[in-house]
Amino acid sequence: MEKQQKYTIGIDLGGTNTVFGIVDAQGTIVAQDSMKTQAYETAEAFVEAGVARLVPLISKVGGLDAIAGMGIGAPNANFYTGAIETAPNITWAHERTVPLAKMFSEQLSSLDSRQKEPFPVRITNDANAAAMGEMAYGAARGMKNFIVITLGTGVGSGIVINGQLVYGHDGFAGELGHVTMVRGKEGRACGCGRTGCLETYCSATGVARTAREVLAQTDRPSLLRGKPAEEIESLDVSIAAGKGDEVANEIFRFTGKMLGEACADFTAFSSPEAFIFFGGLCKAGDLIMKPIEEAYNQHVMPIFRGKAKFLVSGLMDANAAVLGASALGWSE
Amino acid sequence: MEKQQKYTIGIDLGGTNTVFGIVDAQGTIVAQDSMKTQAYETAEAFVEAGVARLVPLISKVGGLDAIAGMGIGAPNANFYTGAIETAPNITWAHERTVPLAKMFSEQLSSLDSRQKEPFPVRITNDANAAAMGEMAYGAARGMKNFIVITLGTGVGSGIVINGQLVYGHDGFAGELGHVTMVRGKEGRACGCGRTGCLETYCSATGVARTAREVLAQTDRPSLLRGKPAEEIESLDVSIAAGKGDEVANEIFRFTGKMLGEACADFTAFSSPEAFIFFGGLCKAGDLIMKPIEEAYNQHVMPIFRGKAKFLVSGLMDANAAVLGASALGWSE
Repeated sequence: MEKQQKYTIGIDLGGTNTVFGIVDAQGTIVAQDSMKTQAYETAEAFVEAGVARLVPLISKVGGLDAIAGMGIGAPNANFYTGAIETAPNITWAHERTVPLAKMFSEQLSSLDSRQKEPFPVRITNDANAAAMGEMAYGAARGMKNFIVITLGTGVGSGIVINGQLVYGHDGFAGELGHVTMVRGKEGRACGCGRTGCLETYCSATGVARTAREVLAQTDRPSLLRGKPAEEIESLDVSIAAGKGDEVANEIFRFTGKMLGEACADFTAFSSPEAFIFFGGLCKAGDLIMKPIEEAYNQHVMPIFRGKAKFLVSGLMDANAAVLGASALGWSE
Repeated sequence: MEKQQKYTIGIDLGGTNTVFGIVDAQGTIVAQDSMKTQAYETAEAFVEAGVARLVPLISKVGGLDAIAGMGIGAPNANFYTGAIETAPNITWAHERTVPLAKMFSEQLSSLDSRQKEPFPVRITNDANAAAMGEMAYGAARGMKNFIVITLGTGVGSGIVINGQLVYGHDGFAGELGHVTMVRGKEGRACGCGRTGCLETYCSATGVARTAREVLAQTDRPSLLRGKPAEEIESLDVSIAAGKGDEVANEIFRFTGKMLGEACADFTAFSSPEAFIFFGGLCKAGDLIMKPIEEAYNQHVMPIFRGKAKFLVSGLMDANAAVLGASALGWSE
């Protein structure tokens, strides 16, 4: 009897929660569960607990035969090695390399004695999973060349070229949050140990930092002066900008200019059909997307002008990370 | 009878000369000829004359049956459309799009009435052809992720990811000479209409410009003061640097720093195994390659440090462009 593989498993492994989902080919999560990532002392205990959660979900869709594969989105995950490589924020992966894909594959394969091949499990980082999700179910359906940029605590990216995710020779490609936007001593200090990275300006943290700088440099009135400067978050800037606050909109124009100029350089590299933005900052809609696109078209090489689309993620609602990871499960 | 396709045809179509070569799988040019590119009034006349030159070369290796395909390296060539798209420096392609791949394919196919499929002809720009050549016969043999950077009158690039050349969604990807290295008004004016592009600093022209600036800013003694400033070329800087001239070496350190910082950003994108440099400037060897590699390792994200190789092209001798183009003829 031919296998009917109608589903994949997606796992979003975050610093706090790990969310499991079984997803169909249309991107609907048909079964899900979650657990605390750090409630386990060892990686082995984490995987055992994870598989225990998965068993009833797998039964619900008709057993392992119905499932094409599993994808995991996790910090510091390397697609090539199938491992989490010393993730500082996860206690059981803090000081070791954890071959998580192999561990899950072995445990899942052992569930069904008829399985002759190891159950396929793939792993990658969050931003790459997001790009797979956009291609399978989101804004990039039908596209073969696009770049997903995630604007969160940091700036991440997943790059697709010729329909394939770009991992590079070592598995760590696609770190567009760490291209240098401001060279020399003027650049902001970055968590990566260098200065002037895109992330220091355009992450949620970077936007809040810009807000504090702009407010300190002038005494122009602004809704942002309603709370102590050190408590301002990027969400406050979004809200104020939405109300027409000129200082907040100036902060968005500065952020958008930085992102647009960066995208102009990315186009010189891979000339994508679209840039797709993901993360809380995008909820500001045109207030942030228009400055990005304007700066892009102003700074990109003339032959590329007006060609690229600037889109907000098609997976902005809950469980986008599970969907993204699950998309890895369909890969050949 | 099965075809024995032991050869490909490579055409290097330059502003002055067009060189034809028949190349075997080891990268040896077994037959060649050339003609003036601009001695023809129309693209049709150019193709007819080209095929007339090719006929005796093709006979020499046993006819069209012995040849897998043909590749053309040409300015403003688009791999997807098979056309030269308004090349300003070629009279017969100056104000029109010339479907050169199709034109050559039709003419060559008509040579042999037994041919049922159109003879495969592919076209791309010079830097992309160089990358194909490095992968087939040069410094990138066996590599699946690398970037070729050509340092000539301009700065060009050919990017290979997962063993495939990156063309982008429109066929124009890989313009790394036009990433912005100096933002704002301080950037040097570029031929592309913008300012601060890598090309304005690191092309042969850019190096000569740096030399003139450095000489004007100081009165330090230098071998470079031996000729009028406006006549200095990058070759003069190479020769002076080779003789230990401190000003010339400072110019190379400046150029190398710019290239190394740019490569650090390229690694954040595609994490290549190697950067391969091509062009006259590379003949300076370690005098330019060491500053590039040092600046790279100083500026790249810590996880990438020390991983990438910095190599000089394996095809620096004559006819590299023909070899590069011929490599396209092997493609599936």
